[in-house]
Amino acid sequence: MTNPVVGLAISGAGAEDLLLTLFLMFVAAKVAAEIFERLKQPAVAGEILAGVIIGPSVLQLVQPGELTNALAEIGVIFLLFLVGLETKPGDIFRVGGRAVIVAVLGVIVPFLLGYWMADLWGQPRIESIFIGASMVATSVGITARVLGQMGLLHLDVSRIILGAAVIDDILGLLILAVVSSFAKGSVDYTQIAATAGLAIGFTVVIILLGTRAVNRIRPRVERLRVNQSYVVFGFALCLGLALVAQYIGVAAIIGAFLAGMAMSESAEGTDMSHQAEAVTEFLLPFFLANIGMQLQLTAILNRGTLLFAGLVTLLAVVSKILGCGLGAWTLGRRKAMQVGMGMVPRGEVGIVVAQIGLGLGAIGNEAFGVVLIMAVATTLIAPPFLVLLFKQEQRIPPDPSVPISSLG
Amino acid sequence: MTNPVVGLAISGAGAEDLLLTLFLMFVAAKVAAEIFERLKQPAVAGEILAGVIIGPSVLQLVQPGELTNALAEIGVIFLLFLVGLETKPGDIFRVGGRAVIVAVLGVIVPFLLGYWMADLWGQPRIESIFIGASMVATSVGITARVLGQMGLLHLDVSRIILGAAVIDDILGLLILAVVSSFAKGSVDYTQIAATAGLAIGFTVVIILLGTRAVNRIRPRVERLRVNQSYVVFGFALCLGLALVAQYIGVAAIIGAFLAGMAMSESAEGTDMSHQAEAVTEFLLPFFLANIGMQLQLTAILNRGTLLFAGLVTLLAVVSKILGCGLGAWTLGRRKAMQVGMGMVPRGEVGIVVAQIGLGLGAIGNEAFGVVLIMAVATTLIAPPFLVLLFKQEQRIPPDPSVPISSLG
Repeated sequence: MTNPVVGLAISGAGAEDLLLTLFLMFVAAKVAAEIFERLKQPAVAGEILAGVIIGPSVLQLVQPGELTNALAEIGVIFLLFLVGLETKPGDIFRVGGRAVIVAVLGVIVPFLLGYWMADLWGQPRIESIFIGASMVATSVGITARVLGQMGLLHLDVSRIILGAAVIDDILGLLILAVVSSFAKGSVDYTQIAATAGLAIGFTVVIILLGTRAVNRIRPRVERLRVNQSYVVFGFALCLGLALVAQYIGVAAIIGAFLAGMAMSESAEGTDMSHQAEAVTEFLLPFFLANIGMQLQLTAILNRGTLLFAGLVTLLAVVSKILGCGLGAWTLGRRKAMQVGMGMVPRGEVGIVVAQIGLGLGAIGNEAFGVVLIMAVATTLIAPPFLVLLFKQEQRIPPDPSVPISSLG
Repeated sequence: MTNPVVGLAISGAGAEDLLLTLFLMFVAAKVAAEIFERLKQPAVAGEILAGVIIGPSVLQLVQPGELTNALAEIGVIFLLFLVGLETKPGDIFRVGGRAVIVAVLGVIVPFLLGYWMADLWGQPRIESIFIGASMVATSVGITARVLGQMGLLHLDVSRIILGAAVIDDILGLLILAVVSSFAKGSVDYTQIAATAGLAIGFTVVIILLGTRAVNRIRPRVERLRVNQSYVVFGFALCLGLALVAQYIGVAAIIGAFLAGMAMSESAEGTDMSHQAEAVTEFLLPFFLANIGMQLQLTAILNRGTLLFAGLVTLLAVVSKILGCGLGAWTLGRRKAMQVGMGMVPRGEVGIVVAQIGLGLGAIGNEAFGVVLIMAVATTLIAPPFLVLLFKQEQRIPPDPSVPISSLG
């Protein structure tokens, strides 16, 4: 009930919607997480599914929009910052060569198979190219969350996945740059090379020099008078590098991950992880539910399109497992499968590629809907398999009586 | 620099603006906080001033909008939830009678003096009434933050301020309901009585039964499988009661405060406060900077209006100190001054009243600008005086070498 006298206006435009949206998304995500935990399924998948259910596809209680996208973005930025805090640059370097191979094969195989499949289905060439491109980029947040909740981020396999996801994102940026300029009619290779150089340079510089720079600045930061100066500095660095990453063209989460990694050494023994985790715990449900809310099944509900979407999704899963698994083959079949499955979720990254294609007029609404289904479905499919594949390594028992003060 | 090939589109519409806005607001607020701390001034005032500087009045780097308002609202909701967590219902009951007197006098005096002054200045009657009404409601977040950072929320004076702010908000709602329906032409007293009953009933029921209800639910919540179930429950309760409060017509922060208070007993010894504090630390700068960003000095920069704004501001300060101070007079002059100054900030609440008046056509742009200045100026003026007035009671030294893991 709304106050009958003063009405909506009392809280300013949209503010009442804000709280309703927050409440619905948060509670729906957490209720679904609880149900999934009881079914021994990963909470992540439940929270995404909650978004599908309250979103435009089913109950239509909440519409995705600028606000939900913003909260989602901040949530996944904090998640990757947190994952970075638990990852030392050396950890990534040690698996760097492997990660490069996994990323490269994990980009080539899905792109080619996606293109080939869409072409066979009779899509126009440029649309087929964009469908292929949308199958390239991995949404590492989903996998990071599942592995983080299982307490497995320290595994070599996890680090290969994280490193490969960073490289994968840069490669995805380049493919997107090429296909976008291809759609516009002319490809400027000098500019694309500059973009590549910038993205790679940014990543390498932060990985190589970030830790030392942070360690050097830290004593000064701690002498500041502002309350909790080191945590404030960390949050600012996270936002700052996310912003730089986005200006360069890679995903903001890559910048946040690099910021966390640069602080991973000096943050030990401080309250930084705990605080970043608290923010993540509050905001991440919005990221997960918001992915599910992107789905608009009603828009493309005809049998042919759904069949096509199913095939694209299947191929998206198989091609990543094939490509990335091939890259990790020498580690043994089990680990190769773990790596491959870890790279399966496309989530928000695939959606962004499709949005760009839609914006350029390169793909139509039908292909856009197909990519949406693929992006959401891959994020739903991967977590249960990840839990199965990592069951042996799991440190945290799947059914803990978690003390209130414990960290996820 | 934006990626020249793919451009803005890569991050989806508005997402790049999002990160830039977040980064600018957060860093500007924290730099200003640092400067103010060094000048032995309260960080809160610095963070508001940072908003004035980066906002439309000076540098025009960031515009307030739906997004900044949303982050601001979530930030202040978490702040009041946190303050509630440190306040037991009994603490408020013990000072309840005093709080009622403080609130009632703190509503009557500013309203009458504001109306009288605007009337003298020659404003139309309905405009004068709205200016009076905008001087009623206290933005308790500012005072709560200052007292919280000084470690003084446990004082009786602090509890009188908190209790009075809740009652003040309900009275403000009723005044607003009366003047709004007056502006529309007809006053439905039955409906207003119903609103009053609902607002008072909601508050009293939560204060009386909230703690017991939470204590009873808690064992069940802890048996849930979802990660950190008790904290998740707390966040959901906070959002839920904020939403209910807003539907009834009182401010969302009152609901959040009541939610915190209902959990204050059972949250002891858990990680709840710590986690709510982490979220608050991240989001509150957006609330404070956003207040400053509301100011649009350029819009009304003529001498007469500025003089009027100055007088209204002065009266807003004096009338609250007078009214609330009178209500707390028997506690001695010093405590009366503390209570009065604690109720001075009008912040976002005064702005909302003016927005409603603007929406109803009851006040013009000039009077709206005057109220904006009054609302922002009172939030800037109060904190330094609060620090002075509470200096003797302060537990936390004003110049601490804060260990990283300490809480504000």
